[in-house]
Amino acid sequence: MYISFLQFKPEFGNVSYNIDRIQVLLSKYLKESAIKPDLMVIPELANSGYLFSGFDELEATSETAGEGEFYNSLQKISSENGINFVAGFNEKSGKDFYNSAYIIRPDGSFDVYRKIHLFDEEKKWFKPGDKPGIYSLNINEEEVKIGVMICFDWFFPETARYLALKGADIICHPANLVMPYCQRAMFTRALENQVYTITANRIGKDINGSKDIFFTGESVILDPKGNYLARAKTDSEEIQSVEIEHTIARNKFLNPNNNIFDDRKVNISIEQ
Amino acid sequence: MYISFLQFKPEFGNVSYNIDRIQVLLSKYLKESAIKPDLMVIPELANSGYLFSGFDELEATSETAGEGEFYNSLQKISSENGINFVAGFNEKSGKDFYNSAYIIRPDGSFDVYRKIHLFDEEKKWFKPGDKPGIYSLNINEEEVKIGVMICFDWFFPETARYLALKGADIICHPANLVMPYCQRAMFTRALENQVYTITANRIGKDINGSKDIFFTGESVILDPKGNYLARAKTDSEEIQSVEIEHTIARNKFLNPNNNIFDDRKVNISIEQ
Repeated sequence: MYISFLQFKPEFGNVSYNIDRIQVLLSKYLKESAIKPDLMVIPELANSGYLFSGFDELEATSETAGEGEFYNSLQKISSENGINFVAGFNEKSGKDFYNSAYIIRPDGSFDVYRKIHLFDEEKKWFKPGDKPGIYSLNINEEEVKIGVMICFDWFFPETARYLALKGADIICHPANLVMPYCQRAMFTRALENQVYTITANRIGKDINGSKDIFFTGESVILDPKGNYLARAKTDSEEIQSVEIEHTIARNKFLNPNNNIFDDRKVNISIEQ
Repeated sequence: MYISFLQFKPEFGNVSYNIDRIQVLLSKYLKESAIKPDLMVIPELANSGYLFSGFDELEATSETAGEGEFYNSLQKISSENGINFVAGFNEKSGKDFYNSAYIIRPDGSFDVYRKIHLFDEEKKWFKPGDKPGIYSLNINEEEVKIGVMICFDWFFPETARYLALKGADIICHPANLVMPYCQRAMFTRALENQVYTITANRIGKDINGSKDIFFTGESVILDPKGNYLARAKTDSEEIQSVEIEHTIARNKFLNPNNNIFDDRKVNISIEQ
């Protein structure tokens, strides 16, 4: 199967531009490349951009899960091309907003993961999710289990560990990274859990009034041994795909004597 | 305070050579350097070497905790120079052997940590420990908390997490590393827990009959932001020290809105 990231530069607050830009990048890729991705990850908050300064901006760029333009656009591309998407979006639910990701399947079904660990000022705007994201996909008639975490969720080893323990073959990681750490640390996340990981980061700057924030690009795909299979540039819009055998992630033996799950001996919990 | 590693090449099975070699390296360092280390980490199984092929070899190179030559040698250096040691050794207890580390203090007291996660064929020779290693030191009239983990313990994020949650300012990590991962991954262990780490690795090869095994050197010290403060070569015996302010590790805020301990939301346990 082919797994992919789409790295792009959203325009803050411009939902239709962002939807259009993703469509353009995708159809160019599908036309020019010989590859049909089975699973593609699209960055965090890909419909809205990141740097909010008021709830009116959240309201204007959000959608109810499964009912908005962003969903419709990706669902259409998914059905027509057989691509499973994991795509970050600004979700509205009742009066609350969530930093969420769609899991969109070619059969028309979808799920939503809500970011659990909100970063910095996101806590002003979003409510946190409370359920780690583990989902099943059907790819080439086989069940593939994916875990979904969004951006800062990576910082907590518990997140990826939980997803791997629940059977994730691939951790899908939409991101809007601003700190200089994650792309390097994904080496450890992949290795310690013996899973594939796909981090889809955005590039560019959001500017809002007197504030701005810069995103680091360099989206990465890793294999269960911590090898970087793909790495985007820091400043270009690009789609990259790699062919993998997802069942490799189901072997948790490092050697005949060490199974990294069975060998776990130290209990940690939130109460500690 | 100054924290240090000692990287050296033990000779397999030759306890008195190994003790002597550590003494020589240490007294040379103390004479030639202007630095008096407050805390020094010495590799895993520093008294015995690594590549066992029978229990007679374990027996011949082990000591009862607090009663052997290796202990006596380090305790003497500790008292005379005010150095706290964390030093890996082959421990005998009753009929069992443990892959252990001494925590030796200048006041004459000591503790022993027994490696929890045994690597590969170590499972043949050693019993696993069952208590994560968290200890208090008194350095310059201040309490410094250290966590101790041995070599492969690093692979499990739960180990360092537990030690950090219990208040470790510095994670002391005697090692005999053979896989090519740990030195890179310590970036993540330091960062995700916002602690200092000292990995003291050995160099050289153990040869035993037709078997041999190669160790990777490159001992490292990191700060709570994941910066490499010191890094040894892959093939030289060396002591390196860096000056740190251990209380920096007590600040778990990444920014005013994110405390990496308080923000933990995902529970993982061994039963999962």
